[in-house]
Amino acid sequence: MKVSKFGGSSLADGHQLQRVFNIVNADSNRKIIVVSAPGKRFTDDIKVTDLLIKYAEATINDQNTETIISDIKQRYHDIAYHFGLPQESLTDIDQQIDHLAKKHYRSFDYLFAAFAAHGEYLNAQLIAKVFTYLGLPARFIDPKQIGLLVDDNARSATFNTQSYETIAKLDLSTSERLIIPGFFGYTNNGDMATFSRGGSDITGAIMARALSADLYENFTDVSAIYAVNPNIITHPAAIHQMTYDEMRELSYAGFAVFHDEAIIPAIQGGIRINIKNTNDPDAPGTFIVPPTEVQETRPVTGIANSNRFAALYLHRYLLNKEVGFTLRILEILKRHNISYEHMPSGIDDLTIIFDKTNLSQDKVDAMLADIAADIRPDTLKWLPSYGIIMIVGEGMRNRIGALTEIVTPLKENGISLQMVNQGASEISIMLGIQPDLADSAVKAIYNNIFKIE
Amino acid sequence: MKVSKFGGSSLADGHQLQRVFNIVNADSNRKIIVVSAPGKRFTDDIKVTDLLIKYAEATINDQNTETIISDIKQRYHDIAYHFGLPQESLTDIDQQIDHLAKKHYRSFDYLFAAFAAHGEYLNAQLIAKVFTYLGLPARFIDPKQIGLLVDDNARSATFNTQSYETIAKLDLSTSERLIIPGFFGYTNNGDMATFSRGGSDITGAIMARALSADLYENFTDVSAIYAVNPNIITHPAAIHQMTYDEMRELSYAGFAVFHDEAIIPAIQGGIRINIKNTNDPDAPGTFIVPPTEVQETRPVTGIANSNRFAALYLHRYLLNKEVGFTLRILEILKRHNISYEHMPSGIDDLTIIFDKTNLSQDKVDAMLADIAADIRPDTLKWLPSYGIIMIVGEGMRNRIGALTEIVTPLKENGISLQMVNQGASEISIMLGIQPDLADSAVKAIYNNIFKIE
Repeated sequence: MKVSKFGGSSLADGHQLQRVFNIVNADSNRKIIVVSAPGKRFTDDIKVTDLLIKYAEATINDQNTETIISDIKQRYHDIAYHFGLPQESLTDIDQQIDHLAKKHYRSFDYLFAAFAAHGEYLNAQLIAKVFTYLGLPARFIDPKQIGLLVDDNARSATFNTQSYETIAKLDLSTSERLIIPGFFGYTNNGDMATFSRGGSDITGAIMARALSADLYENFTDVSAIYAVNPNIITHPAAIHQMTYDEMRELSYAGFAVFHDEAIIPAIQGGIRINIKNTNDPDAPGTFIVPPTEVQETRPVTGIANSNRFAALYLHRYLLNKEVGFTLRILEILKRHNISYEHMPSGIDDLTIIFDKTNLSQDKVDAMLADIAADIRPDTLKWLPSYGIIMIVGEGMRNRIGALTEIVTPLKENGISLQMVNQGASEISIMLGIQPDLADSAVKAIYNNIFKIE
Repeated sequence: MKVSKFGGSSLADGHQLQRVFNIVNADSNRKIIVVSAPGKRFTDDIKVTDLLIKYAEATINDQNTETIISDIKQRYHDIAYHFGLPQESLTDIDQQIDHLAKKHYRSFDYLFAAFAAHGEYLNAQLIAKVFTYLGLPARFIDPKQIGLLVDDNARSATFNTQSYETIAKLDLSTSERLIIPGFFGYTNNGDMATFSRGGSDITGAIMARALSADLYENFTDVSAIYAVNPNIITHPAAIHQMTYDEMRELSYAGFAVFHDEAIIPAIQGGIRINIKNTNDPDAPGTFIVPPTEVQETRPVTGIANSNRFAALYLHRYLLNKEVGFTLRILEILKRHNISYEHMPSGIDDLTIIFDKTNLSQDKVDAMLADIAADIRPDTLKWLPSYGIIMIVGEGMRNRIGALTEIVTPLKENGISLQMVNQGASEISIMLGIQPDLADSAVKAIYNNIFKIE
């Protein structure tokens, strides 16, 4: 049995959904189908999830919601129309869209979560109708009915692993395909709560683990995961196979093709993952597997980079003499509910690296004010933009000279680094860099390691 | 006015003290003389401070102290005898040694501190007598009488900076040389409390800053600070001049010639430091100065290494997703009163590096047990011995390729690293290495950077 997850671009319109239908119909092992909300049909298009967030904002601000409601309904109707589904079969979906603004929510966060979750929630309902209409019996499965529970973090929820047991009870003996919306679960109170953006991958991984799937297929719009961002290097090497840990480190630093938290259930259940292309389903794609299954040997598997970071630099003499110095800083962070990513330190210097997608300027200002007052550093600097490059590969484990291959081309290209962090992970080297230098750095490193002139 | 500090080897016996006398006598600007306890006269000799610690242990354990007391007295008597001082002038010193075991102490820690401090305390008294006897009027100054206060950390005290004001009142208009014991101060309760070992350098720096000395001379047994440990490289380059920060980073990682905490008062007061050799007083030595005064340009100033570290390695999936994860670890460290040195992290990996000189096996075991129970890591490893190499130089500031010069010779010599930490400090790169590889690594890096074949 396979769990097959389809991303937003694979479900953006009827034309794409037809391809998804063909893929599912071609293999009776594709039993559990996890779906995203309809994504972009063209570059400047708006994802249904983003339309729903606009709808949520308009609702909160008591603005007119007529146009936005109509835009959202239109997306689902367009898909239904492509397959010739009768208008009336969308009545309940329309009603649910209307009803969203009328329900009571525990908080604004839960309101946003419920609105956003409906992108997937309604799409799964629609897809079950379409598949059945096309002659492939399919049934919508609400995460509530299989007990997919999450914690109380409304918009960045964590899966409650006790749910594996209840999900495992799902009856697979039916001939129907089971269509499950990704991205969200329910709290103990029965509220919808979403994973972080892109979290449909997580739902797929949870289902695959709970049901001990033979394979977790993750359908997206690329034929393979490439060793480097194709926007930086034209025609980069494709990765045919990699380990869970390699994928996890690469996705952390910008390989957006697979959500980094979605790896965990797969690791725990030993579930093999296959990243495939909806538009090229015969291509083998990329397999993400346990380390014991990897046959290829290569010095480096992939190079990822992301400029989504920010950093705080702090200097104070005798900084590391004091027991509990960093503790006080972390207490300040906790008070402001700010998590940090890395904290490289020198003798009297400390850099703290943050994921700025989770930070607001107000939070940063408040945190800096508290640190200045409580810690009294000699120097305190805020770098609002900070790039991280990760060079990842099981082949780097214990290999002497891995770092030389990375820093030599940077030197030759006159590129300076803000940070080098090697050794915390055995399979990766992390570099900190000014965001405007990141692309040239990645290019220089890639060309050296993959020996391209 | 100069503050001149003499280390234990410069004061080990009468022969050495004669040299110190000549140096002080040769320059009337050498007004404030800070002295250590008598050090080793030959390789297997025991420092007076270590004899006093034995004496303290014997006292606590209610053992016979007759031999140890006699050994301690003998060291001071030998020095006095060398100069022909009459026996009776040592009566009060002998009495103080006897009396040590009879006093009441607030705690065992304060007992140890007081015993250890007497190495300097008595030596300063003796040296004042000797100098005066030789015709150079000198007066013993008790840190108590000038208000040199420290905090309550009996054996690793921190100077109370409010004392600068009281010390500054010391009358320098006298023609006498003022002999001040290094290494200790007094708590607000009037108890003796020592700095960490080698802390006489700190006393000298405090005096130099409090009295705005023109120069802080630090007399030791080497004619210069060398760019690398002479036990690793024969005839290494001498460092004629370096900045405070360079010295601080080098002394952190093993350049024992100057106590790393002693730099702080010098920095704050802008006091120039001159490391000189008691046995070769005409050699210019090494000047440690503000960054604006350094004229030489060179890629690297020095390479230090120390194997006094230990490390904890921890792996847990989604480690960095959790706000307050590291906070919980640091709270455990604080509960066990353990300070850490560095904490490099990967996505799911965390290494914590400790100075093992401050750790007992019991503390480590208790800490590891708490971390295992509270954090439940997937992997938890303890590395009881961990080496750190610091490559230090103002010339590394913003210089592209500094890291290449370091990792290339390591690759060529087949030496692997456990950690690379660049970027926290602008003037240094920190490497983590297996202790048994550290010397070969230092040699390879030194030979490459200083271009020796």
